[in-house]
Amino acid sequence: MSFGDVATKAGGGGLPPNDGLGPLSDRLSLGVAARLSRYLQVLTQARKMGKETISSQELSEYTHVNSTQIRRDLSGFGKFGKRGVGYNVDSLVSQIRKILRTSGQHNIALFGAGHLGKAIASSDIFADHGFRVVAVFDQDPGKIGEQVGPATVRHVDDLRSVVDEEDIVVGVLAVPTAAAQELADKLVDAGVKIIFNYSEALLQVPPEVTVHTSSPAVDLLYALYFYLT
Amino acid sequence: MSFGDVATKAGGGGLPPNDGLGPLSDRLSLGVAARLSRYLQVLTQARKMGKETISSQELSEYTHVNSTQIRRDLSGFGKFGKRGVGYNVDSLVSQIRKILRTSGQHNIALFGAGHLGKAIASSDIFADHGFRVVAVFDQDPGKIGEQVGPATVRHVDDLRSVVDEEDIVVGVLAVPTAAAQELADKLVDAGVKIIFNYSEALLQVPPEVTVHTSSPAVDLLYALYFYLT
Repeated sequence: MSFGDVATKAGGGGLPPNDGLGPLSDRLSLGVAARLSRYLQVLTQARKMGKETISSQELSEYTHVNSTQIRRDLSGFGKFGKRGVGYNVDSLVSQIRKILRTSGQHNIALFGAGHLGKAIASSDIFADHGFRVVAVFDQDPGKIGEQVGPATVRHVDDLRSVVDEEDIVVGVLAVPTAAAQELADKLVDAGVKIIFNYSEALLQVPPEVTVHTSSPAVDLLYALYFYLT
Repeated sequence: MSFGDVATKAGGGGLPPNDGLGPLSDRLSLGVAARLSRYLQVLTQARKMGKETISSQELSEYTHVNSTQIRRDLSGFGKFGKRGVGYNVDSLVSQIRKILRTSGQHNIALFGAGHLGKAIASSDIFADHGFRVVAVFDQDPGKIGEQVGPATVRHVDDLRSVVDEEDIVVGVLAVPTAAAQELADKLVDAGVKIIFNYSEALLQVPPEVTVHTSSPAVDLLYALYFYLT
């Protein structure tokens, strides 16, 4: 039994041997998009710290992705690196952002148009990483039609059709604890495999579904503990 | 050089040999409050999972705090445990919450009365852990006087006096990136040693100050990477 975040790695569906990189107009596989997103996070931080070039070896140390895999991921999109010098950080950041913005296209459905939901929906970080909050739901009928970030609030009854039409891969629950399990059930029924739970509910889901439980306040307290002791 | 969250452990100020436990009417030291808060997080999760009793050894495994230290922390507040059986989870949760609510009293100043700031300020988790958002600041004059969670929005010019009067131990920055460094400077000048940074700014602070950088969107993307690869 483990405590803290209840998270089980999503099972099945390995990457095709050629990394799943098709023509640019195809959508990137989730695995590739996720790795590119991780490189982008690290590169963005490197850039902030004034680092101008980075080698695949360094990227490997920071991301814990095998450096051969990194070079393969990045080679599929054209030449970014110079042998012996490494990749230009600025250039790589722009290129990866561009690729993720155009070919990432992995969609998020958000539940809860309260403060936290609005904070998440209006974050422009997602777009850089190829993820989009394409649908927002709230059980308050008064909020239907309201603009939240890039989306308009819809009724929870539309969940199933939205998940199908928009090919939702992640459901985010920024809702009161009492509402979370029912929404999780609906997401699971609709075929969504990854759920981010910002409530305090301990969600019951089938083994092939991943639940990540977190919240800004809990994270803050958890980190405080490590800084104060 | 390390990437990701830029966090340096707060230096100096060790705990007195008797754990800093004074009479209950005294405020708990930060170290003790932080450990109790950590036990409470783990115990709350244990309770959700239906666990009725827990031993100091188990608590030690989950929190990574030495079990002798745990027994010492908990013994100072009266008998919670039964030899051979362990502590009653429900009872321990109530007792620790009560202690933290009355003797925790560690205060947080929040900057930014936008969506994320409001989400953090209105979280009732802090109170259980003995932390209180006692002050909220925003640079928009139109927001001064607005109620945000348990506090009223004040002008940033009041920062110094608020930090002194309210004995602020943590500053939380839920502000646009461009505004973060200036606020961090003000917090540091006022003597605050721990800063939670929800912006994308890479903050420059003196070595004795701890900065924890995070944001719901970044955490979501980071976790997604691990679930998808």
